[in-house]
Amino acid sequence: MLTRTSTQSLTEQLADRFSERIRTRLLAPGARLPSVRECARQQGVSPHTVVAAYDQLLAQGLVEARRQRGFYVRDSIAAQAGPALSTIGGPISEQPAAKLVPADASTLIRGMFHRPSDKPQPGMGVFPSEWLDSPFTAAAVRRMTSTRALQDFSLQYGEPAGDGGLRRSLATKLANINVPAGPEQVVTTVGATHALDIVSRTLLRAGDAVMVEEPGWALEFARLEALGMRILPVPRKADGPDLEVMERYCDAGDGHKPKLFVSVSVLHNPTGYSLTPGSAHRVLQLANKHNFHIVEDDTYSHLAPEHATRLSALDGLQRTVYVSGFAKILAPNWRIGFLAASPALVGRMLETKLLTTLTTPSLFERALAWCIDQGQLRRHAERVRLRLDGARGRTVKLALAAGCTLASEPAGLFGWVDTGVDTDALTQRMLDEGYLLAPGSLFHARRPPSTLMRINFATAQDAAFWKVFARVKAQL
Amino acid sequence: MLTRTSTQSLTEQLADRFSERIRTRLLAPGARLPSVRECARQQGVSPHTVVAAYDQLLAQGLVEARRQRGFYVRDSIAAQAGPALSTIGGPISEQPAAKLVPADASTLIRGMFHRPSDKPQPGMGVFPSEWLDSPFTAAAVRRMTSTRALQDFSLQYGEPAGDGGLRRSLATKLANINVPAGPEQVVTTVGATHALDIVSRTLLRAGDAVMVEEPGWALEFARLEALGMRILPVPRKADGPDLEVMERYCDAGDGHKPKLFVSVSVLHNPTGYSLTPGSAHRVLQLANKHNFHIVEDDTYSHLAPEHATRLSALDGLQRTVYVSGFAKILAPNWRIGFLAASPALVGRMLETKLLTTLTTPSLFERALAWCIDQGQLRRHAERVRLRLDGARGRTVKLALAAGCTLASEPAGLFGWVDTGVDTDALTQRMLDEGYLLAPGSLFHARRPPSTLMRINFATAQDAAFWKVFARVKAQL
Repeated sequence: MLTRTSTQSLTEQLADRFSERIRTRLLAPGARLPSVRECARQQGVSPHTVVAAYDQLLAQGLVEARRQRGFYVRDSIAAQAGPALSTIGGPISEQPAAKLVPADASTLIRGMFHRPSDKPQPGMGVFPSEWLDSPFTAAAVRRMTSTRALQDFSLQYGEPAGDGGLRRSLATKLANINVPAGPEQVVTTVGATHALDIVSRTLLRAGDAVMVEEPGWALEFARLEALGMRILPVPRKADGPDLEVMERYCDAGDGHKPKLFVSVSVLHNPTGYSLTPGSAHRVLQLANKHNFHIVEDDTYSHLAPEHATRLSALDGLQRTVYVSGFAKILAPNWRIGFLAASPALVGRMLETKLLTTLTTPSLFERALAWCIDQGQLRRHAERVRLRLDGARGRTVKLALAAGCTLASEPAGLFGWVDTGVDTDALTQRMLDEGYLLAPGSLFHARRPPSTLMRINFATAQDAAFWKVFARVKAQL
Repeated sequence: MLTRTSTQSLTEQLADRFSERIRTRLLAPGARLPSVRECARQQGVSPHTVVAAYDQLLAQGLVEARRQRGFYVRDSIAAQAGPALSTIGGPISEQPAAKLVPADASTLIRGMFHRPSDKPQPGMGVFPSEWLDSPFTAAAVRRMTSTRALQDFSLQYGEPAGDGGLRRSLATKLANINVPAGPEQVVTTVGATHALDIVSRTLLRAGDAVMVEEPGWALEFARLEALGMRILPVPRKADGPDLEVMERYCDAGDGHKPKLFVSVSVLHNPTGYSLTPGSAHRVLQLANKHNFHIVEDDTYSHLAPEHATRLSALDGLQRTVYVSGFAKILAPNWRIGFLAASPALVGRMLETKLLTTLTTPSLFERALAWCIDQGQLRRHAERVRLRLDGARGRTVKLALAAGCTLASEPAGLFGWVDTGVDTDALTQRMLDEGYLLAPGSLFHARRPPSTLMRINFATAQDAAFWKVFARVKAQL
């Protein structure tokens, strides 16, 4: 908050706050700053202070003034570049690939790593670390470092497909959810993100059309866009993807037909929806008729209800590729994910892994295998699910009391909440209060304004947050 | 070797040997098997045994007979696929992206991980693990696991750019070789491979032209080809890349101009050449005139002579991006690499990292920072360089005695050796003897036949290998 007792002037404090948000992309390139009057009211300072702060941002090259329209965040490249001096002379053109990574996505993604305060963050995508804290994970790592084994595996590249022991453990885990895959069909990756990247790079070429559920996870849209793919958004409904929309995409002429469908089938992010068996069957029928692949992102598998329906189980990994990881349940920084694919495809997936990272570190893979084999992961996941059930109940009550409605039946880690106000504006104002939200626009390929937001049930069960939320919302 | 005392028949042993090589891509799709007569002579068995073995391979769908022309390894996809049964019905087409990853590269790359025997492998790309074995690496890892720190960093994603302490250590290391980069210009990656992948994905779009040194590392050709880039090979000479060829590429019409030059400037793989200051200056002048970026792959930096010339140092990281890693000196399986880029570019590189793997594991990054800060890495590298100098002298003597000549002045880890015979054929025959070679064809984008091969000075100082080599070469 701005404070008059600080050694910095109010103008400097205000300018610093905006420049920090621009730098961390919490204010995206092209975003409009609040009007002088609006900002003065929000921050409780004089319009003169706001004008002086905006002038500082202008001088730093972070914003630009547009005649009669106010102040806008400058294009990221230009803002980051500074003076481009070459030792030999002549300007460096950064233009060619400037649009490869859309600025939109980095807003949320960078936000994942820049906590605006120490308060519980309702927009977070993972459990708070204290939820994951268990003595067994550290014990598992130390088991692998206390022996000669550490040197043995450190000093060679390791198995291309990943640690053999872990792949056996994963194959057993997959069998438990009826996904038939031998260890030789499993490839470990640097988190589920890397697995999804490998699948799209293996199955697609630039310009190909990909169906992606909407709303959906911003990183997936951004990654596919950066790879030059054409994104076809498929509305996600309670029972599964909108099949009529999918069918219309599939009826496009040759060369425009979708090659891949990306689906978070169980505990979909952000709605919490899970696929029904009937819908799964029809999706696979369509895939079969129109000859596209499906990548099933089962990132939330450890929070899923028993007997949840997976496309990969029905399909027997013929046309589907299964992807999951452990960031949501065990240790995000271990960066372990994996994919399982048909014998026909797994060799090609492995080649893409080799081209992108060669191998993956064995230490955590062995530690994870131990956690699975000893039953530690299963018991830990049970504890987390139970705790989450309680948190979900409390959070829902608080959200309703704060005047929100639920856009979908509460399930899993995330709530999809209608606030009744524009959540992009709400996000900027809540940042002033030290809270980072996940506004609805971030879950759409084209970022339309939205009154929805995603909340994390584990971190949003905090009455203090909802009090601030209700106050700020009323001011909008 | 085939043996008559085995419980398997000679036919089965021979068929198994070929099927294993086809499976591991040591025999690439499209490769021709030796003629029946030739194979019988090489293996010391009757033509009847060979015919029976080839028939087994035919029955397994691994090879196909072409009328009057012999037996050929079948296309990889078909060979791996097996019966493509869908639970719902209808065939699965794997065709669309089948050519994304060229089979060529996987031959060498997979070979890196499939040692055909326990003998020292002269084709290897890294030091044998006993050369890297030092008590300090395990100690460094255990320091990071013996404290509360392990849980602290495991349970969050970690810093997007990589561990802050490591980035400070790397910035200091870079300053020592006159590459000016603050910690905020450094991004850690999953090995140098991932760093090169990030650079090309950030700066290029599918269809862009990239200049790559030839001969050069097969993985780089394969990766760029898989990304859909147009590869423009630039002959690598003793003092640097062939500038006349580069100039001709640059004089192409707009839209065909190269966007990037990939260079292993110091201790080039496979020739061992290091860039001269004059050549570096001219390369940068050309880059400036024709507005392309340069990625400098300094993978062998720890083996480099003092005062070696880096493009990134001359250029001050304006137009260059610096890439290096620790697989060649410390611990291949830790998978730590990094890139350093201008303030204008580093933000975009970081976004590509986030899209591909989110973050990287902190444990090994912290352990590596400790090894650097304590001077352990520097002293270890000195010991390895000294040992390599001795090995190089012995290997060169043995190679010359075996009738080879050296295609370049011996330096660094690799020798570039002219055998006087076709090294693709030599490689297949040496596999029968338990040795995997790195034939010259693998270091070219188009894989032309070559009499050259790359040898690893650390593993080729073995008289037994050269004895077998001379015998097999004489039989060709």
